[in-house]
Amino acid sequence: VTGFEARRLVRTKQHRGPTAELAPGFVQANLVAVPAADAGDFRLLCARNPVPCPLLDETAPGTVTSSLASGSDLRTDLPAYRLWRDGDLVDRLDDAREIWRDDLVAFLIGCSYTFEWALTEAGLPSRHARCGLNVPMYRTNVPLAPAGRLHGHMVVSMRPYPESEIDRVRAVTRPFVEAHGEPFAWGDPGQLGIRDQSQPEEGDAVPFEPGEVAVFWGCGVTPQVVAVESRLPYVITHEPGHMFVTDRRHEDLRRAELD
Amino acid sequence: VTGFEARRLVRTKQHRGPTAELAPGFVQANLVAVPAADAGDFRLLCARNPVPCPLLDETAPGTVTSSLASGSDLRTDLPAYRLWRDGDLVDRLDDAREIWRDDLVAFLIGCSYTFEWALTEAGLPSRHARCGLNVPMYRTNVPLAPAGRLHGHMVVSMRPYPESEIDRVRAVTRPFVEAHGEPFAWGDPGQLGIRDQSQPEEGDAVPFEPGEVAVFWGCGVTPQVVAVESRLPYVITHEPGHMFVTDRRHEDLRRAELD
Repeated sequence: VTGFEARRLVRTKQHRGPTAELAPGFVQANLVAVPAADAGDFRLLCARNPVPCPLLDETAPGTVTSSLASGSDLRTDLPAYRLWRDGDLVDRLDDAREIWRDDLVAFLIGCSYTFEWALTEAGLPSRHARCGLNVPMYRTNVPLAPAGRLHGHMVVSMRPYPESEIDRVRAVTRPFVEAHGEPFAWGDPGQLGIRDQSQPEEGDAVPFEPGEVAVFWGCGVTPQVVAVESRLPYVITHEPGHMFVTDRRHEDLRRAELD
Repeated sequence: VTGFEARRLVRTKQHRGPTAELAPGFVQANLVAVPAADAGDFRLLCARNPVPCPLLDETAPGTVTSSLASGSDLRTDLPAYRLWRDGDLVDRLDDAREIWRDDLVAFLIGCSYTFEWALTEAGLPSRHARCGLNVPMYRTNVPLAPAGRLHGHMVVSMRPYPESEIDRVRAVTRPFVEAHGEPFAWGDPGQLGIRDQSQPEEGDAVPFEPGEVAVFWGCGVTPQVVAVESRLPYVITHEPGHMFVTDRRHEDLRRAELD
């Protein structure tokens, strides 16, 4: 299906659950909606931390349509939402119309599904996809550059690859700068302060095969940790894995000069 | 003097030494020149790490004039240069004409003198400036986002301020996004892996007064650590504190919407 059709399936509840397999070829995005009073800080957070938070779109206050997706409604076109108040996760919903406020500004952030599509095209599919799992995500000890009232630590997603393939994995994902780009780190999870790889904070642990090492990418769930650490008063996000499907194609995000 | 006059004074050796007091009001820049083969990686390094490496200008290969400075010659208009080969600092010179290669691409990176000018205007001058010292710079344990063959750790500059002034120091420096912007961290130097504040890797240690805490900003010396850690074959940089003076005014770098 196309991005447009995918959004209709989600809006009418014909599709529930993760969006990984929905509308292959179309860019998906992380959602972060904050009151206009916090929007300037959030925009600056993205500018200062573009690896976890590559900004694809920002709405005007009170607008619920993204310029990346015709006829879209950000309150209904994602399968699952989270509501955060004062740093606490207080609600999970499959429709955000009742919690959306007129002063909210929505930010859309690039998603790993884009580079996973490229990895699959290159014959390097992700383990979690082949196992039918969600990608494992870990909170790290890597500090973000703060922006006004916003601060926190980076979240990474992890995919195992044979050590011999890391150069190719890096090269395939490098051109997708607006979708986290090349890996942030690989090898020892301790270098990022990750103590137990079998206990991801989000998503599912995945099995390793002999000779494989962990490869870590910046992750668009990072703003959810920022919401907690900064004790933001009011934030709506997607549920990890349950993304906003746009009309853009993955190829549109490839920077040819980095191939 | 103007930026133009400052460059003439440097070129004719009428000015030697640090450029901090030269041409007040004019933007100064860090220099990093690499062979064209490494330029794509360096451009990406800046894009992925804009807090330590805010890119102001990039020359075409073989060009020695910056678009930020009329009639400039990057080989002669800085008071002191460093030459790095395979990760080693192999030479220090006051003229780069003999070591400049036709395939070099020069990158100019924003410098803390811009936000120090703003801090002084706001009645918050830096300790090192009042003491006639160079700003202290420290290598941290904060990993950069790698870019192709380039990787390394962030360098920060440090200025002591009373804890009660930190909000104002942050606000004054925040709008200067292309000159490292607001601080990266403050308080305990251990959070950045800095063990001994009295032993900066570059510049001079500065005295603290009672009630003051260390405030750390991203620093444009970071690419020199990248040159070492990545064992780059050939890099020319400035000597810390000995910058390239441009024709741009500090005010031009202020983003009014962040005031």
